[in-house]
Amino acid sequence: MSDPFAGLAAVLGTAPVHVDPQRQSRKGVPEIVYAAGKPPSLTLAAVRTLLTDGPTGRVLVSRASRETTDTLRAALEPDGVSLMTSTSGETVLAVRSGAVAPVQTGGVVGVLTAGASDAPIADEAAWVAQEMGCHIVRADDVGVAGLHRLEAPLRRLRQDKADVVIVVAGMDGALPSVVSGLVDIPVIGLPTSIGYGLGGGGIAALLSMLQTCAPGLVVVNIDNGVGAGASAALMANRVAAARRS
Amino acid sequence: MSDPFAGLAAVLGTAPVHVDPQRQSRKGVPEIVYAAGKPPSLTLAAVRTLLTDGPTGRVLVSRASRETTDTLRAALEPDGVSLMTSTSGETVLAVRSGAVAPVQTGGVVGVLTAGASDAPIADEAAWVAQEMGCHIVRADDVGVAGLHRLEAPLRRLRQDKADVVIVVAGMDGALPSVVSGLVDIPVIGLPTSIGYGLGGGGIAALLSMLQTCAPGLVVVNIDNGVGAGASAALMANRVAAARRS
Amino acid sequence: MSDPFAGLAAVLGTAPVHVDPQRQSRKGVPEIVYAAGKPPSLTLAAVRTLLTDGPTGRVLVSRASRETTDTLRAALEPDGVSLMTSTSGETVLAVRSGAVAPVQTGGVVGVLTAGASDAPIADEAAWVAQEMGCHIVRADDVGVAGLHRLEAPLRRLRQDKADVVIVVAGMDGALPSVVSGLVDIPVIGLPTSIGYGLGGGGIAALLSMLQTCAPGLVVVNIDNGVGAGASAALMANRVAAARRS
Amino acid sequence: MSDPFAGLAAVLGTAPVHVDPQRQSRKGVPEIVYAAGKPPSLTLAAVRTLLTDGPTGRVLVSRASRETTDTLRAALEPDGVSLMTSTSGETVLAVRSGAVAPVQTGGVVGVLTAGASDAPIADEAAWVAQEMGCHIVRADDVGVAGLHRLEAPLRRLRQDKADVVIVVAGMDGALPSVVSGLVDIPVIGLPTSIGYGLGGGGIAALLSMLQTCAPGLVVVNIDNGVGAGASAALMANRVAAARRS
Amino acid sequence: MSDPFAGLAAVLGTAPVHVDPQRQSRKGVPEIVYAAGKPPSLTLAAVRTLLTDGPTGRVLVSRASRETTDTLRAALEPDGVSLMTSTSGETVLAVRSGAVAPVQTGGVVGVLTAGASDAPIADEAAWVAQEMGCHIVRADDVGVAGLHRLEAPLRRLRQDKADVVIVVAGMDGALPSVVSGLVDIPVIGLPTSIGYGLGGGGIAALLSMLQTCAPGLVVVNIDNGVGAGASAALMANRVAAARRS
Amino acid sequence: MSDPFAGLAAVLGTAPVHVDPQRQSRKGVPEIVYAAGKPPSLTLAAVRTLLTDGPTGRVLVSRASRETTDTLRAALEPDGVSLMTSTSGETVLAVRSGAVAPVQTGGVVGVLTAGASDAPIADEAAWVAQEMGCHIVRADDVGVAGLHRLEAPLRRLRQDKADVVIVVAGMDGALPSVVSGLVDIPVIGLPTSIGYGLGGGGIAALLSMLQTCAPGLVVVNIDNGVGAGASAALMANRVAAARRS
Amino acid sequence: MSDPFAGLAAVLGTAPVHVDPQRQSRKGVPEIVYAAGKPPSLTLAAVRTLLTDGPTGRVLVSRASRETTDTLRAALEPDGVSLMTSTSGETVLAVRSGAVAPVQTGGVVGVLTAGASDAPIADEAAWVAQEMGCHIVRADDVGVAGLHRLEAPLRRLRQDKADVVIVVAGMDGALPSVVSGLVDIPVIGLPTSIGYGLGGGGIAALLSMLQTCAPGLVVVNIDNGVGAGASAALMANRVAAARRS
Amino acid sequence: MSDPFAGLAAVLGTAPVHVDPQRQSRKGVPEIVYAAGKPPSLTLAAVRTLLTDGPTGRVLVSRASRETTDTLRAALEPDGVSLMTSTSGETVLAVRSGAVAPVQTGGVVGVLTAGASDAPIADEAAWVAQEMGCHIVRADDVGVAGLHRLEAPLRRLRQDKADVVIVVAGMDGALPSVVSGLVDIPVIGLPTSIGYGLGGGGIAALLSMLQTCAPGLVVVNIDNGVGAGASAALMANRVAAARRS
Repeated sequence: MSDPFAGLAAVLGTAPVHVDPQRQSRKGVPEIVYAAGKPPSLTLAAVRTLLTDGPTGRVLVSRASRETTDTLRAALEPDGVSLMTSTSGETVLAVRSGAVAPVQTGGVVGVLTAGASDAPIADEAAWVAQEMGCHIVRADDVGVAGLHRLEAPLRRLRQDKADVVIVVAGMDGALPSVVSGLVDIPVIGLPTSIGYGLGGGGIAALLSMLQTCAPGLVVVNIDNGVGAGASAALMANRVAAARRS
Repeated sequence: MSDPFAGLAAVLGTAPVHVDPQRQSRKGVPEIVYAAGKPPSLTLAAVRTLLTDGPTGRVLVSRASRETTDTLRAALEPDGVSLMTSTSGETVLAVRSGAVAPVQTGGVVGVLTAGASDAPIADEAAWVAQEMGCHIVRADDVGVAGLHRLEAPLRRLRQDKADVVIVVAGMDGALPSVVSGLVDIPVIGLPTSIGYGLGGGGIAALLSMLQTCAPGLVVVNIDNGVGAGASAALMANRVAAARRS
Repeated sequence: MSDPFAGLAAVLGTAPVHVDPQRQSRKGVPEIVYAAGKPPSLTLAAVRTLLTDGPTGRVLVSRASRETTDTLRAALEPDGVSLMTSTSGETVLAVRSGAVAPVQTGGVVGVLTAGASDAPIADEAAWVAQEMGCHIVRADDVGVAGLHRLEAPLRRLRQDKADVVIVVAGMDGALPSVVSGLVDIPVIGLPTSIGYGLGGGGIAALLSMLQTCAPGLVVVNIDNGVGAGASAALMANRVAAARRS
Repeated sequence: MSDPFAGLAAVLGTAPVHVDPQRQSRKGVPEIVYAAGKPPSLTLAAVRTLLTDGPTGRVLVSRASRETTDTLRAALEPDGVSLMTSTSGETVLAVRSGAVAPVQTGGVVGVLTAGASDAPIADEAAWVAQEMGCHIVRADDVGVAGLHRLEAPLRRLRQDKADVVIVVAGMDGALPSVVSGLVDIPVIGLPTSIGYGLGGGGIAALLSMLQTCAPGLVVVNIDNGVGAGASAALMANRVAAARRS
Repeated sequence: MSDPFAGLAAVLGTAPVHVDPQRQSRKGVPEIVYAAGKPPSLTLAAVRTLLTDGPTGRVLVSRASRETTDTLRAALEPDGVSLMTSTSGETVLAVRSGAVAPVQTGGVVGVLTAGASDAPIADEAAWVAQEMGCHIVRADDVGVAGLHRLEAPLRRLRQDKADVVIVVAGMDGALPSVVSGLVDIPVIGLPTSIGYGLGGGGIAALLSMLQTCAPGLVVVNIDNGVGAGASAALMANRVAAARRS
Repeated sequence: MSDPFAGLAAVLGTAPVHVDPQRQSRKGVPEIVYAAGKPPSLTLAAVRTLLTDGPTGRVLVSRASRETTDTLRAALEPDGVSLMTSTSGETVLAVRSGAVAPVQTGGVVGVLTAGASDAPIADEAAWVAQEMGCHIVRADDVGVAGLHRLEAPLRRLRQDKADVVIVVAGMDGALPSVVSGLVDIPVIGLPTSIGYGLGGGGIAALLSMLQTCAPGLVVVNIDNGVGAGASAALMANRVAAARRS
Repeated sequence: MSDPFAGLAAVLGTAPVHVDPQRQSRKGVPEIVYAAGKPPSLTLAAVRTLLTDGPTGRVLVSRASRETTDTLRAALEPDGVSLMTSTSGETVLAVRSGAVAPVQTGGVVGVLTAGASDAPIADEAAWVAQEMGCHIVRADDVGVAGLHRLEAPLRRLRQDKADVVIVVAGMDGALPSVVSGLVDIPVIGLPTSIGYGLGGGGIAALLSMLQTCAPGLVVVNIDNGVGAGASAALMANRVAAARRS
Repeated sequence: MSDPFAGLAAVLGTAPVHVDPQRQSRKGVPEIVYAAGKPPSLTLAAVRTLLTDGPTGRVLVSRASRETTDTLRAALEPDGVSLMTSTSGETVLAVRSGAVAPVQTGGVVGVLTAGASDAPIADEAAWVAQEMGCHIVRADDVGVAGLHRLEAPLRRLRQDKADVVIVVAGMDGALPSVVSGLVDIPVIGLPTSIGYGLGGGGIAALLSMLQTCAPGLVVVNIDNGVGAGASAALMANRVAAARRS
């Protein structure tokens, strides 16, 4: 009897990742491998290609499961690749042996969190922006339940000449609106999935930011630290380029 | 031929309002006629009964359409009843000739609004609380887009010894959380339907208040000025009664 | 080769909790550490600081995972700190050796549940209110499926002179509206996530409370026992203070 | 030039109503013409056919706009057809000259409303059930904000031996659950679109009924008085048929 | 030092279940213990009381976790109590030694499922109705994807003189509307949580049933087999009682 | 003083429509002007350009307000352009003097409606498909409340060799699933906004179709007759082309 | 004592699957066993019957849990049945010993994915279409974040004369609209549950496809690879049949 | 008799607007009066104060009803104030006699629309950015249904050295993701309420933008042209300031 599955393998997506090593030069954003929904082997293959063919020898992986991280570590560390994971464990930076740190652009990105529970997502945003060459000004747990905590960080943002500030908040999502009423730079609201009950999981935070009464606030999706960091760095780097020219 | 509709009228709700004139003494809240969905004649009948049989000769009507207000005015003013409508036109106070003003209880209720657009709903809350004998401390347009505007009103709340404060906000709904982090009295968040787009119509404001990170904040539904005012007055009046005793 | 991760650690939120030991005196609500989304080590650090620097030597932790509770127990009990967990296991009270019980204020808070499944959330509310010095009047499983069960608890609320009552209900959420129609004190509706299908997880209960036709009912979010307890105690303690003066 | 629209008319639905005059005998429910979305002329055509070909010479029209009602009246009254509209104006009963009233089946249907605003929808339910031969036991405005109003109607339901009871409620939708805990006959919850804010338009009422903790409660959609009435009559008429046999 | 937790235990709900052994006689529905959210020990205590004090020595438990079922089995079987679990494992029937089977009322309840995946929920409905004394007419997997499968079951419903039919369907939820257009008895739509994607988990099924264009269809919530069974039995038993009298 | 608005007009979108007259040859779908949100003058300008530059001298306008239709009629009829509006009045066909009817492709598209209220949307789908050269097989009011009405239309679809069938349904949206279980050609479900209450406005219909248990059913959005018609014609025309070759 | 559970087993759905081996000839779609919610033994029974009685000796199982797959493997492989699972592991093809591969129809179905994470769902669609005799043209990871990747696949679709194309996309769901603007064959949008935050789980992707501004796009539900594949094959096979005739 | 309404007027918000003329210097965003929900007289009072006390003599009013615009025109034009309204009629610019045009900052803002229906909202964004001193690069109707239309505008953005681009899209909301994959400057997605059916009113557009797979895209709420314009100008002006220094 002939193979009953003849032809079936041919229709499956055997190597479905197209890595785009030139994205960094075209877009100014490093290639970031989105690991959710991919088998670990697929993520590994993409990382390998980018480490080899990409311009920097540095690759970010987002939404990595523990299984994916373990797969990367087991396969890449023997080849001299260094790996570092973010606080949440979901973002991984892989660096080829001999790769250099990102060039500092002079762009300055502020990162504020409303509560300590928002820190892991803020870490991802800060990390992406730093990977894109920005200097980070960071302050945590300055939320609206005790507004007196907000004064010092805002003073520091001014002193350090931040070009843009990412404000990270879950639950009520009120801090980005408050900050946006007090500073004269663009504010990116980054809602987190902290919070339970109706409007929980970041819904209320996102909606409140979308409804802000303080003009100058833009938003990204819930827990999208990567997007907030990349957008902030694009803004700050354009300012920095103008400063340099 | 006999009447083809015989019996049909009998099954309709011909006089479906049961007024409850004793509610004021049992609950401490005056009878409020909810006019939405009622034919004007039904609302009129309910108001008449309460003016005659109730203990105070004063009746509040909420969610009144213009048609209902006109019906009340045309029917009641010739009988010496005085009517006053709120800013929004949806709340009406009817007062029988000779009725006296509510007894002052000594309870003090603060009412703050985030924006001027929130004022009509704040008016309804203030009105109900005053009708229940409270003194009102009011400040408007003190929202989070310019937090420096908040200092003076909070000082006045302390000076006037407010027992509870209603904070009225639409759009981002951030103000109640901010206020709740700064005062030591109960705060009632009253979301308004100001705002458009996703989370508009008061949804984001309500959800943000429900998700508040400042303990001590309770909420009522969107635009429910009547409920916020009644609850605030119940709280303040219980404090006032304790002060008197 | 230099450290490929140079600078990365600097942008992470290394100690992102700002404890606020003076909150109790400013707000009248004890500091409560919200543990969701925080690594256990962060929660532990916050609890330690509050036990040492705070005014009472008593700290509440909410939304604690089992891992967090174990971390607290292992680290703090050897130092003479006592820990007690609520029925749900998610609320933890840590008390420093030598700390005294909260001063009784004289405020009285009623706590009623619709069904036995609502009890763990009711426990949290009762616990917070007691920690703020209130006397608790409690009755369980008195829901609308058998209204005759409601008579005795309401009589006790009156006899014990409750200043405010928290009514805890999942599923249909009908009990708070029923109670609010029968008592003359403020009612706080506390919806629980009991229930499945459309409107499950507490949605129907919360919405039904927001839509109540009984004025005098305010609400907190689903399963927010901490918020309900803190708000009730703020109300009751203000009445009690007036009684004492 | 030939007709540029040749063939276009042929593809339009020129007479798209198929009336089903035998439905009454097959289903036990009279043909009800759903007028929403139909041009008045189409509704008129359907009514005419049913008056002529149907077994009873009586036709109900639901969700009729004023324009539809006017069209029916202008076209049918000159032919000796009598028309009666419900309180809401949206349900119309057309009766051919000489048609007799529905035969009384002996089935008994209770209809209770929580508030006076629910009465128009209750009218539709009562009307359909009566048109199907049932006796109606009706009581209005007996909602949960004052439970003492519920005693007398429940006593009457028992005295009149109701086979099923329709409980009509908007806003919090609590009454059907309360009634279902107190009676031993099937209860049909009929939510109405009374109420505003989150959960308004009948959403909270419907969800609360779906989440009932009192077994024995079934529901229909918001404002679906026709469906509640038809279902109740089907139930009551089956009981009545058993009683007769 | 005194006990730092003095008084805390007193405010917790130590025995929060009020069993209601007389419900069966008052409501005609046996006491059903809702186990979700209850610690197993609480469910056990409730079952014990009902087995001892209730009129029948038979108790149903719904939404039981495996842990709860194991707890019941370990504690009750040594005392001679027999336990049986439904297909889904979530419904448990406990029967005291010597208890008799339910008295047959003569009521007849049809139970149809659209797909085989709906069978476990249908089992719960059938079980409750049988526990209330009804005869069950059952047919499975007769959904709309192959309508020819529907003929035989509908013929059997007529032959066996079903008084009411429960139609169980997930996914598109179309079957109850189709059946309701073909039979002259009341139809209860019971949506199940079968289905994924938008409208999954039973949402589309429930909404489609609520929107039915076939009058005579009432619904219960998603997966609420207990509610559907109890309602159907209430209807059928009232018919049966009329037949007997 | 200089013009205070200097430069402002320059930033407004003065002629923001780019008509794409070659779309018909590239896509096989005629240019359809979507009029919602456009000032009538803009729609008129687009129609004029397409009538002049397009390959057929025929232009469809969808979602036209009455004001837009009047504008088109007043401006174009004097130039010899003929206009025809669909039943709903929202779709308009403009034909230049001398333009010829669409070439018949031989593709056959079935169009079935569940209820008469669905006819106007079905008209739009039929019209677009006919404009693309298809033959239409139409049957109305064959919904699931009386399945015997479905036999004849399905027989006609087979006799006329329909290549694809559009099934139009609001409310419960059950008919497309039923039809898809009975035919061996692709079925396009076209939900309409008929229906009120939860799941109303076409939501339940769309979700039920998305959840269909009958493979072979694809859907378009609520009331999107244009999209259903264009998709059906693309399918049928590809079959017809194969038949011709 | 008699059996306390007498009669209970009789009301349970003991063999609730009705396999429909003739569906393939009637519908052109092979019988696919939907395993979600079924106990593995039930799925096994259905597969056995279809392997034996069906026309092809080939059966697809969708939404199979690992437990179900293991059950099938253990029971069927000893009988000479071969099993193959898709990339996601949720679709299983069982082939009886001696069964032949599907007859090639000549229909051509394109399958494009926006990202590599969409590949497993695309595999299911491709597999079903191939099982129905179609030739598959596949290209992966060609999404809108780098549109230059789209050129080659579209060229191949034209060269290979695809009759229909399935475009698979999660997150923003933009690719199907882009493709539909560029090709002249029907496009089936297949949203996947890739994506988190608001609009995550495939919601944004599905809604964006439903709202497409490119006519000629139809959709199936999130992750419904089986439905997309079956619909595409129905379309392509009808074209192929016309080509052959 | 004394005034029955004594004290009532005192609790209403008689002058609830606090204008903040210094906001422009503090925030870099001109004061914009949000007119929704305000009586026209209140909006007028705010505009008057800002024209007199503000630094520029120019005031923007957003969400103005026709009644508000008429009130402004009637009251202000006699005083030499010039008014200009946007295409939608909802945004109004009032300029005091003698006021000068905004100083050009050198910042460059691109504005692209997907369809002509999006133009009015794009106008508002462009207007606000121009009022803040930016140069606008505008292109319309370049949406994804015909991607070839996108080349020229993107070339112009590069030639004119845009610092940021606002991409305006309703319906599927796909264009911002496509543009964000092609440019190396920040992109602000501005969803519009164009579109009907599920995901209509801008919901699908907003969700698709939030779910973008192209990093570097931030969003504002549906129809929030004012917010998009202000944010873009803040970004561009910071770049321009760096260029000047």
